[in-house]
Amino acid sequence: MRYKKMKAWLHQCPGEIPQGIAAPCEMAEYELNNAFPESAWTIRVVPEMKDGYRIRQENGSWVLTGGDTGVLYGAYAMIRKYYSGQPAPAAEESAPRYALRMINCWDNADGTVERGYSGRSLFFEGGHFAYDSGRMRELGRLLASVGLNVLCINNVNVHDPAQLLLEDYLPEAAELAAILRPFGVRLMFSVDYSQPMRHGITTADPLDPAVRKWWKDTAARVWEAIPDLAGFLVKADSEGRPGPFTYGRNHAEGANMLAEAVKPYGGVVVWRCFVYNCRQDWRDLETDRPKAAYEHYAYLDGQFSDNVILQVKHGPFDFQVREPLSPLLLAMKKTNLAMELQLAQEYTGHQIDLYTMAPMWKELFEEMPSGNIMSIAAVSNLGRDENYTGHPLAAVNLYTFGLLAWNPDMDMETSVSEWIRLTYSLSEKDTGDLQRVLLSSRRIYEKYTAPLGIGWMVTPHDHYGPNPSGYEYDLWGTYHKADRNAVGIDRTEHGTGYLLQYPEDFRIKYEKPETCPDLMLLFYHRLPYTFRMKDGRTMIQRIYDDHFEGLEETEKMAAVIRSIPFPEPDFSCIVRRMDMQLRNAREWCDIINTFFHRLSGIDDEKGRKIYL
Amino acid sequence: MRYKKMKAWLHQCPGEIPQGIAAPCEMAEYELNNAFPESAWTIRVVPEMKDGYRIRQENGSWVLTGGDTGVLYGAYAMIRKYYSGQPAPAAEESAPRYALRMINCWDNADGTVERGYSGRSLFFEGGHFAYDSGRMRELGRLLASVGLNVLCINNVNVHDPAQLLLEDYLPEAAELAAILRPFGVRLMFSVDYSQPMRHGITTADPLDPAVRKWWKDTAARVWEAIPDLAGFLVKADSEGRPGPFTYGRNHAEGANMLAEAVKPYGGVVVWRCFVYNCRQDWRDLETDRPKAAYEHYAYLDGQFSDNVILQVKHGPFDFQVREPLSPLLLAMKKTNLAMELQLAQEYTGHQIDLYTMAPMWKELFEEMPSGNIMSIAAVSNLGRDENYTGHPLAAVNLYTFGLLAWNPDMDMETSVSEWIRLTYSLSEKDTGDLQRVLLSSRRIYEKYTAPLGIGWMVTPHDHYGPNPSGYEYDLWGTYHKADRNAVGIDRTEHGTGYLLQYPEDFRIKYEKPETCPDLMLLFYHRLPYTFRMKDGRTMIQRIYDDHFEGLEETEKMAAVIRSIPFPEPDFSCIVRRMDMQLRNAREWCDIINTFFHRLSGIDDEKGRKIYL
Repeated sequence: MRYKKMKAWLHQCPGEIPQGIAAPCEMAEYELNNAFPESAWTIRVVPEMKDGYRIRQENGSWVLTGGDTGVLYGAYAMIRKYYSGQPAPAAEESAPRYALRMINCWDNADGTVERGYSGRSLFFEGGHFAYDSGRMRELGRLLASVGLNVLCINNVNVHDPAQLLLEDYLPEAAELAAILRPFGVRLMFSVDYSQPMRHGITTADPLDPAVRKWWKDTAARVWEAIPDLAGFLVKADSEGRPGPFTYGRNHAEGANMLAEAVKPYGGVVVWRCFVYNCRQDWRDLETDRPKAAYEHYAYLDGQFSDNVILQVKHGPFDFQVREPLSPLLLAMKKTNLAMELQLAQEYTGHQIDLYTMAPMWKELFEEMPSGNIMSIAAVSNLGRDENYTGHPLAAVNLYTFGLLAWNPDMDMETSVSEWIRLTYSLSEKDTGDLQRVLLSSRRIYEKYTAPLGIGWMVTPHDHYGPNPSGYEYDLWGTYHKADRNAVGIDRTEHGTGYLLQYPEDFRIKYEKPETCPDLMLLFYHRLPYTFRMKDGRTMIQRIYDDHFEGLEETEKMAAVIRSIPFPEPDFSCIVRRMDMQLRNAREWCDIINTFFHRLSGIDDEKGRKIYL
Repeated sequence: MRYKKMKAWLHQCPGEIPQGIAAPCEMAEYELNNAFPESAWTIRVVPEMKDGYRIRQENGSWVLTGGDTGVLYGAYAMIRKYYSGQPAPAAEESAPRYALRMINCWDNADGTVERGYSGRSLFFEGGHFAYDSGRMRELGRLLASVGLNVLCINNVNVHDPAQLLLEDYLPEAAELAAILRPFGVRLMFSVDYSQPMRHGITTADPLDPAVRKWWKDTAARVWEAIPDLAGFLVKADSEGRPGPFTYGRNHAEGANMLAEAVKPYGGVVVWRCFVYNCRQDWRDLETDRPKAAYEHYAYLDGQFSDNVILQVKHGPFDFQVREPLSPLLLAMKKTNLAMELQLAQEYTGHQIDLYTMAPMWKELFEEMPSGNIMSIAAVSNLGRDENYTGHPLAAVNLYTFGLLAWNPDMDMETSVSEWIRLTYSLSEKDTGDLQRVLLSSRRIYEKYTAPLGIGWMVTPHDHYGPNPSGYEYDLWGTYHKADRNAVGIDRTEHGTGYLLQYPEDFRIKYEKPETCPDLMLLFYHRLPYTFRMKDGRTMIQRIYDDHFEGLEETEKMAAVIRSIPFPEPDFSCIVRRMDMQLRNAREWCDIINTFFHRLSGIDDEKGRKIYL
């Protein structure tokens, strides 16, 4: 197959990536020589440094010291600086904050991608592995270049025949692992908790000896084929998936059984904490879905094996535009935690609307004490599209996620600007314009969609476009209860008590409507439309203002985007999606305003058009 | 294949239907001898009597006189009376009111059925014909036994490769026509108006000579294969289908071109009048979808060829539980009209909820002057399920539709009772109970669903279950505009003017809220929740009362249904669906009440539970 120029950052790296390279330190050498043919490099591998690296100039030549993977990350750090036009540092030293920096692909064996907006699966088609090995090497380079080191290739909802990754498909999985190994990228598999039952065992009870033996035998077989497999990812007892609850076991018992099986090989069990009653009745006012994860896990703190990682979604709901930090991330001090983000724009515009996530992530980390988590994961936004992410500009989220996973204190303005310079050759003005557009895009999207932390006013199932009451009378536990007087759920101690799951400083910040930050107001409180915001506006007026502003700002953003000379095919792709976003923003603005106007009967003070 | 006992009415008829019979009059003789082996029958065919028949006793033997098909209908009339336990008449004479009594199947070549709730297609699978010829003969008997004489076998939305009915699949279609011919059932095909363009012609313009020639040649070929084909059914310029509007031609020009092509063979063109702007913007208050059919067709009255039949849906929307008679059915005195009903329970419970249609039909005919239509059609509720109609009791709608199509003055109590007796052997009490349940089922369904003629508060696309604002901000032109004060659309002269499309007596009946029949109130008027109904209740109280009553009556109906000893597998099937209906009725009741309570803030006067 003829090599086509890579359609993502680092497309400046010349030539195809050779196939003969086995170890990350060799890849580091190749990439450095490739990028800096005129410079002299000395690479010193110090295994104890692991992912860390140190760069120095000694006698006019460069010395790069680090672990086997560390030198590769150091090499890419230099290469990114170079191709983005930044000066080479006199010296640099770095190590990642988090051990596992993971991408979770929700790819199905049939080639579809759950919540995928970038085409079909990069790995699978028709129930089998089907990948382009050249693209896999590109993918390895992309991931390694921003420090990402674990790739879970299959959906956490393990649909038949994806369970065969542990069985018939293992030899092919090992081939893919070998392609990614020189990039320091280790595979991970999502596993089906009930898989022993496909093998004549009548139970999947984690305390059953036959089940334990099956998983131990399986782990031995799997790690023999892929000795550096990172581990297993598990969605258990969640949205219809099987799990330990079926057998009256708790999730520590459930996870520890798997952990014991994978421990001899250095594997981890990443156990997702996305457990809630997805059959909640809308008439049930006692249950409050955001409380579910804490209730299911917090009491188990300290009971999980040391190679279990609980992977917790960043917020208590499900990847909404604005959610508070999950209380579970603040509650389990004696447990290995990973935070789960979502690059796939499930609720945030389907990679049609611009939505740069770094500002949201920075806010999350501001509220989380350092050291609370030991790993970080993000649901993939990758697919078979030429540009990998559907929308060319959505690649900024993968890029900056890598930098965040390495160091959550990263500067987001610099990171976004770096990605732009690595991806496009634009003027300084256009680069600045694009950076500002990207960094403002999340707030703009938030303004024209569900207001003030309510979330969920989306088209059911599809999750693109407005539907103010789409989930209101449904099963999923996501209600706003808007009536003619008021809107929102009281989640303070006077209401569902959700806020009581937090430490005191957090509670104080949010417990009173008068002092609660505006953008989280209707997440925590039920308030009349006439409630006075801190700036003196009524809440309903604030909703109208935000929506009209969100639409206006989208229009301005569209004008900026159209003025930037992106190369083709990116320009056409970006402008086409921008047109779709404009339509979407108008629908959201008009529908949300009409919805609340019909309920409240209160007119816009500025007399703007609200439809009947 | 082993003959299995027919799972529908007339299962008492012994033995398989023989394959050697060619003509309806021979079938009449076979069926009579089969049913009445001890009686002597004389059959006299008088071709001019067509579908009509006359039965007399002469010297102790029976004489049946009629057209070739008429004697068959006479035979089945006797057989139905006999097996339902009614006394044989001393003499009977009958002829159908409508020439074409049509079933429109929305079956796709891939085996799916659009809006089908009875399993897959009876005719197609995997892009090809695939039918059981024994079942086709059963189907012929079922249709003929209630006087139905035209079967359009493919969906009006002609999805590839169903257009091949006119081409590659024609020989197989002719075989099916031959199976149904002895039952007096003639096939009809839905055609794709743009089909000439699949054959190198660059247009489908009805005035283009090449297009006209293509259709003439095609008609010649098609009628050569099936000389008694009834005609073509066309959905043009509707919901994305191609049509004459593309070429700036009106629908008379469009239909007459096809009519000219099929005329030499006695064929008709049935032209559906389901034309409206399905891309209407919800913000557009000028457009009112119910006005569309009249606006598109009424001015063309007198311009259609005499073998064109305009097929008009019974109401101006789309098969809602309650709609007024379409104004188009009252407006075109110089045009052949057919009324279109829908047996498939698209908006009326998916053949899960009980919904006997005869009461609705009788109301429609009460408002329509005799002689306004010359034919009648119904969208099929048939499928591959053993019982043909998914819900065993849904068969009553096919049965009574046949009787209605023969004579709209038919007595519905008698017809329903006759169907029960032909289908089940129940006690007199159970027969009476079931008859009452069936005849009350439509009003009960109406009570727990969208109130007072509003319609449309269904789950979008799927159309089962409640979603009060599911279509409210969408494209389809079906809005209620409920706000905190009022609900409904003013369709009088003070509003959209829809009511002006009607004759004066009709206008007077509906134009004032004070005198408009309650159940149509919110179809024609926008009214405050505090509006006083004729009985003194407020409109909102009436909505609450109807919904609580609808649920209570469903519960009572369920108790009656469970007490009736239906044979298996019907009993299990009926009870399972009744349980689903109960859940559906509860969801509807609670959601509609909560929706209006949130808007109005007005409590139920009787203090019943309305959820927050």
